[in-house]
Amino acid sequence: MTSRSVEDHAHAVRLLLDRALAPATEHVPVPVALGRVLAADVHAPIDLPLFRNSQMDGFAVAADSLRGVPVTLPIAATIAAGDAGPERLDPGTAVRIMTGAPVPAGADCVVPVEDTDSDDDVVCVLVPRRRGEFVRDRGSDVHAGDVLLAAGTELTPRHLAMFAAVGLTALPVRRRPRVAVIATGAELVPAGTALAPGQIYDSNSTALAASVTANGGEVAFVDRSTDSPELFRDMLARATESADVVLTSGGVSMGEFEVVREVLTPLGGWFGHVSMQPGGPQGLTEVGGVPVLSFPGNPVSTLVSFEVFARPELRRCAGLAPLPADHAKLTGPLESPPGRRQFLRGRRVPQGVTLESGPGSHLVAALARADVLIDIPEDVTTMQAGDDVRVWQL
Amino acid sequence: MTSRSVEDHAHAVRLLLDRALAPATEHVPVPVALGRVLAADVHAPIDLPLFRNSQMDGFAVAADSLRGVPVTLPIAATIAAGDAGPERLDPGTAVRIMTGAPVPAGADCVVPVEDTDSDDDVVCVLVPRRRGEFVRDRGSDVHAGDVLLAAGTELTPRHLAMFAAVGLTALPVRRRPRVAVIATGAELVPAGTALAPGQIYDSNSTALAASVTANGGEVAFVDRSTDSPELFRDMLARATESADVVLTSGGVSMGEFEVVREVLTPLGGWFGHVSMQPGGPQGLTEVGGVPVLSFPGNPVSTLVSFEVFARPELRRCAGLAPLPADHAKLTGPLESPPGRRQFLRGRRVPQGVTLESGPGSHLVAALARADVLIDIPEDVTTMQAGDDVRVWQL
Repeated sequence: MTSRSVEDHAHAVRLLLDRALAPATEHVPVPVALGRVLAADVHAPIDLPLFRNSQMDGFAVAADSLRGVPVTLPIAATIAAGDAGPERLDPGTAVRIMTGAPVPAGADCVVPVEDTDSDDDVVCVLVPRRRGEFVRDRGSDVHAGDVLLAAGTELTPRHLAMFAAVGLTALPVRRRPRVAVIATGAELVPAGTALAPGQIYDSNSTALAASVTANGGEVAFVDRSTDSPELFRDMLARATESADVVLTSGGVSMGEFEVVREVLTPLGGWFGHVSMQPGGPQGLTEVGGVPVLSFPGNPVSTLVSFEVFARPELRRCAGLAPLPADHAKLTGPLESPPGRRQFLRGRRVPQGVTLESGPGSHLVAALARADVLIDIPEDVTTMQAGDDVRVWQL
Repeated sequence: MTSRSVEDHAHAVRLLLDRALAPATEHVPVPVALGRVLAADVHAPIDLPLFRNSQMDGFAVAADSLRGVPVTLPIAATIAAGDAGPERLDPGTAVRIMTGAPVPAGADCVVPVEDTDSDDDVVCVLVPRRRGEFVRDRGSDVHAGDVLLAAGTELTPRHLAMFAAVGLTALPVRRRPRVAVIATGAELVPAGTALAPGQIYDSNSTALAASVTANGGEVAFVDRSTDSPELFRDMLARATESADVVLTSGGVSMGEFEVVREVLTPLGGWFGHVSMQPGGPQGLTEVGGVPVLSFPGNPVSTLVSFEVFARPELRRCAGLAPLPADHAKLTGPLESPPGRRQFLRGRRVPQGVTLESGPGSHLVAALARADVLIDIPEDVTTMQAGDDVRVWQL
């Protein structure tokens, strides 16, 4: 049986996925782009504001006409927001104006309504104003052609507000990688079914699908196969039709009834042992141009395999930042088998990072309580409290 | 015109919303519960593992029968994962067993296949094993009745894996608050339309809807009204049919054509001035038991109003943690009008927090570049570089 280091297998995965998960762009309507990643710089198609407008409800006047306040001016017109209004202010007059309405040429300031007395026809301005006061100039927020936002940004409500304000209908965003998930195992039954002796509930399809979603991917297909090669082969054909990449769990080890290995080895798949724990048995195949990553079936092995091999590639494709690598101090001693890189489940505490459970790859509740993987190198067999370890954010 | 402090208006909003947005529970299928907040402690319905099973592909034996290895034992049966297998191991025999398959009574350890030689009928075990080795005991991960996860937890893929593993079909989660959004203003047109003089693109409906989504809410209704009271009244009726709370933008100030104020004041709404900038004019009404929060229409005023008055309430209802308040050092001086609490747009930099723009409530691109609101108290009029300010995470 062939063996590989974690680095070598990750490299092989990356080579295959680089092509299948090459970053691509799609256009989505602005209102549904929340959380998506901008695929290109977006430029402003128009100035913002597009026209000089009033910052207040009040009266647009020429500042010069306010010398010697109080001053009484005839009201030449009323401009509501949304009105074009008169093109030009006649000298010695005022126009009643609402917030956001266009300030006519000839007017150069706005007197807020609370600084005036008025009836329908005339306004008495009580305080002077300087040119430009309470007037928003064209382009004072954005100039047409400005880069509004750079490629690579994850979109927030504020970004969408800006794009809507310049009238954009759609945005170029990174396409989400489409991922198919197939859990295998004769022992698996879906939730809601009574368990016969020897059967367990399938959790890997839920775990992998949710992990795909949480890392910017789109779940294109989810199903559960028995150990029947015919059933698995048929499911795989449907999965590769719709997905950029397929993730399988189970059926990869050296025992009998290993459906994934049996079906994929003749198709040129690599199946072997990666020197890690959990997650030792792994497979990697290309089926009709679609990479198939085959993880072992123990729930913890499946999720750790996803974290180590699939997550970085999915996030890269989706344009999401890699989760930062980090270091922490161990709160207690630990042992690790030689020759295997170990990913232990840990939890951050004020003093550093503590083991959440033993190494058993069936401890799914312990994994749920963990918030980091503690990464112990292959050649390390014992560590002490206070030692520095690399941790992967879960 | 009545006036209120930010605290007083926030208190009035909270009183009205406490009832409309009382936390409630709904049940959703496990696979779609990602990101939802658990509404009650969830207990394990079964042990995990539910039966004693093998950690390896190999042979289940009694450790006692391995004294004096190498030892040759007859293979009494083969147990694949998913098989019930024989109830009991006959003394002096072995059963071939796959990972996850039930270990029969009488067997107390598993010898991994790599430590054996075998043909169809007999196995030669080369190394001794202690009792319990490579056997996963019933309940070693979870006991039936254990609290698997406490109320209030935001659900991750690992949590869903655990719930699937114990066979749960649905989870009790906090119901998402249903929010309606109505942007008002005669000047508003949708993206994709040519602008006539005086018109602008509606950004508030997009901004508010995305903000609702980003804070655990569900957008029940989004529309855009002119200044026509009939149109707005009709829209409001439809909005209150489906939503727990309605957010409006525009039409609240002291000018003419203030459709929101005109329609809601006769229904008992409070409309007045909150001593803040931006976001001074505000309204609060209860229409048929549904609270209506009315924000001013300038894009920055709308979003700041949402942050200050709506966001804390929506997150509380959805069960999401409030965004932590924080303090930072100003990188430069600033001025603030007396008697108004000012929310300036800022950006975190290594030295502290820097102003992103002036106070203009039309500067929507500047808001998009900001990542915090800088909260300047009512009675502060000047601050210096190095002064400590309160910041709100955007």
